[in-house]
Amino acid sequence: MTDALSIARDLIRCPSVTPADAGALGVLERALTAAGFICHRVTFSEPGTADVDNLYARIGTEGPHITFAGHTDVVPPGDESAWSVGAFSGEVRDGFLHGRGAVDMKGGIACSVAAVIEHLAANDGKPRSDGQTGSISFLITGDEEDVSINGTIKLLKWAAERGEKFDHCVLGEPSNVETLGDTIKVGRRGSQSGTLYVDGVQGHVAYPHRAANPVPDISRLIVAISDEPLDHGSAAFQASNLEFTSVDVGNTAYNVIPGQARAKFNIRYNDNHTQASLRELVETRLTKACGNRIRARIVWEPSNSNVFVTKPGPFTELAVAAIEEVTGRKPELSTSGGTSDARFISSYCPVIEFGLVGQTMHQIDERVPVKDLEKLTQVYRGILQRYFA
Amino acid sequence: MTDALSIARDLIRCPSVTPADAGALGVLERALTAAGFICHRVTFSEPGTADVDNLYARIGTEGPHITFAGHTDVVPPGDESAWSVGAFSGEVRDGFLHGRGAVDMKGGIACSVAAVIEHLAANDGKPRSDGQTGSISFLITGDEEDVSINGTIKLLKWAAERGEKFDHCVLGEPSNVETLGDTIKVGRRGSQSGTLYVDGVQGHVAYPHRAANPVPDISRLIVAISDEPLDHGSAAFQASNLEFTSVDVGNTAYNVIPGQARAKFNIRYNDNHTQASLRELVETRLTKACGNRIRARIVWEPSNSNVFVTKPGPFTELAVAAIEEVTGRKPELSTSGGTSDARFISSYCPVIEFGLVGQTMHQIDERVPVKDLEKLTQVYRGILQRYFA
Repeated sequence: MTDALSIARDLIRCPSVTPADAGALGVLERALTAAGFICHRVTFSEPGTADVDNLYARIGTEGPHITFAGHTDVVPPGDESAWSVGAFSGEVRDGFLHGRGAVDMKGGIACSVAAVIEHLAANDGKPRSDGQTGSISFLITGDEEDVSINGTIKLLKWAAERGEKFDHCVLGEPSNVETLGDTIKVGRRGSQSGTLYVDGVQGHVAYPHRAANPVPDISRLIVAISDEPLDHGSAAFQASNLEFTSVDVGNTAYNVIPGQARAKFNIRYNDNHTQASLRELVETRLTKACGNRIRARIVWEPSNSNVFVTKPGPFTELAVAAIEEVTGRKPELSTSGGTSDARFISSYCPVIEFGLVGQTMHQIDERVPVKDLEKLTQVYRGILQRYFA
Repeated sequence: MTDALSIARDLIRCPSVTPADAGALGVLERALTAAGFICHRVTFSEPGTADVDNLYARIGTEGPHITFAGHTDVVPPGDESAWSVGAFSGEVRDGFLHGRGAVDMKGGIACSVAAVIEHLAANDGKPRSDGQTGSISFLITGDEEDVSINGTIKLLKWAAERGEKFDHCVLGEPSNVETLGDTIKVGRRGSQSGTLYVDGVQGHVAYPHRAANPVPDISRLIVAISDEPLDHGSAAFQASNLEFTSVDVGNTAYNVIPGQARAKFNIRYNDNHTQASLRELVETRLTKACGNRIRARIVWEPSNSNVFVTKPGPFTELAVAAIEEVTGRKPELSTSGGTSDARFISSYCPVIEFGLVGQTMHQIDERVPVKDLEKLTQVYRGILQRYFA
């Protein structure tokens, strides 16, 4: 059975709690191979982390090339005795398919696979039946819910080294907030952390003229750096924001002026900045606030969460049209919310995220209306039809 | 022998490293009893601390009553093999009496005892020979160098409960900076510590509008509280000063806005303030800086280091005259430097500190010129003559 419900149920019955695969990729590999895909199982390793299996499957050899991305690993079920049905039973009750991964995101993957198989069946087994070229592929990982080290980021690099070129990507993460069709995610803010160090001169509180207290100085810098907005938002994003998350000295002696103070901060930034320009902006503010007197420096944390956005255009428009046709709703193009593998994909091609409704994700009794599986499959079919039209 | 050098040598030979007495009080008790004093040995106890012996000796029953205060305990010698002579040998070499306590303050006590014995000998064994009343006493503790719990603070209370009334006190701590006669200590700044707490609302850095970050708020308060001077000094004192000695959050997660921040501070304050008025001043500044938005509070540390000063007047003038006559120097009336038992004595009567030169105190090869012992004895004699004139 290659309908979305059947595939989703088969996937849920594999207890693929990250980083275990538990047979999940095999379910997809069998269905896609049967539909004419060439499949590659790729295992990545890294010292200190578990080996993780990934699946790359493609049909067609030329562009345009649309890829569906996703992950088959799930978060742990928590207290299984609290679930109404078994967390890995894949049971349908009262019109809902129950189980861990139902919406995040085994259900979404199942809909994309089912839609692609339907699309191929309607087009003589090819991405398009009009004689034009075209490719469809799947980038599926088992390493998204935890460290995301042996997953999509490496699979994309592996594919690029093979000469794979992606034109567009649909990531089936649960993007909708309340109702299927309400939200497409088209980007995410970047995240950049750092630590501000201020050096003073240690001394005795009774002789402050022989010391230089870094505590009022770091306080002044914290106020100066965080008071002025980084920007006022952009077309696609809310305003960037910097938060100092800690300030520490660790001095327990009331009679000692300390020699150093440090403060940690995190910035969520929009497409007014790149990582490099953002760091420069903050450093410039720091230099100005320090004047000739305060000795301070910033140590930046490494970050692979760069800002990205897929700007409105033909690709987002065809997705909006497909969603509107099936759901009757015009989705919002959103850049809010937490992180996903889209941050990695965006370095290779434009990516949008559209999947199921996220309300029950990561919760006890995660579940999806069977009707939503059917509708999402139709949305993906509509995207494919328009993409290859 | 009741000359200062002999008494000082006898005291140094008692290894009275705090809180041990090692016979030191007995040396004084014998000399004072022989001179007509009524002596009391008083032992004080406190859970968690060593029992400590103290000595109260008085001659005369009526006022005016001058008391000489001091301590016979010393700090440890450190590496004894590094000393030129034994740390407890009391050896005289090249005109210097060597040993732990030579200047801090067995030497000072020896001079006061020798001076009083000389004074009595010159006045028919009484404080004064003109038929007028007068009393001289000694308040000597063995608990000054460490916790100061079973020492002067309790001895003063014990004496007050016996009905003892002191009119003036000379504390023989090493008050001079470079040369005998350069400095009388007439007061000390008070010390008051506290912790400032700022409460925010914890949250995720990606959703700052749902949180309230206490880090910029405590930074603003630190700047507001420490930027404006507490005062501009007084006749006897330099300006009061507040130093923030630590600021801490302890949050290690870059994606979490913390719920609380705290900052420790210490204030050294002069006689423009009492402890109560100082606290009120800081609380008022805090309230103003918080406005209606910031939730903050101060937790004050207990403190027994109140500000005190013995203002210039007949008592300081007779001490200055005695010093000038012997040393040829007009001493500065100083309120600088660290703490001493004078902070306790000041609650009972005016107190000045005048003793030896502090340069070698607490060091290897602590030592005092024999000439300084002779001169300080003459200064104390000059004070007694003027006091009872």
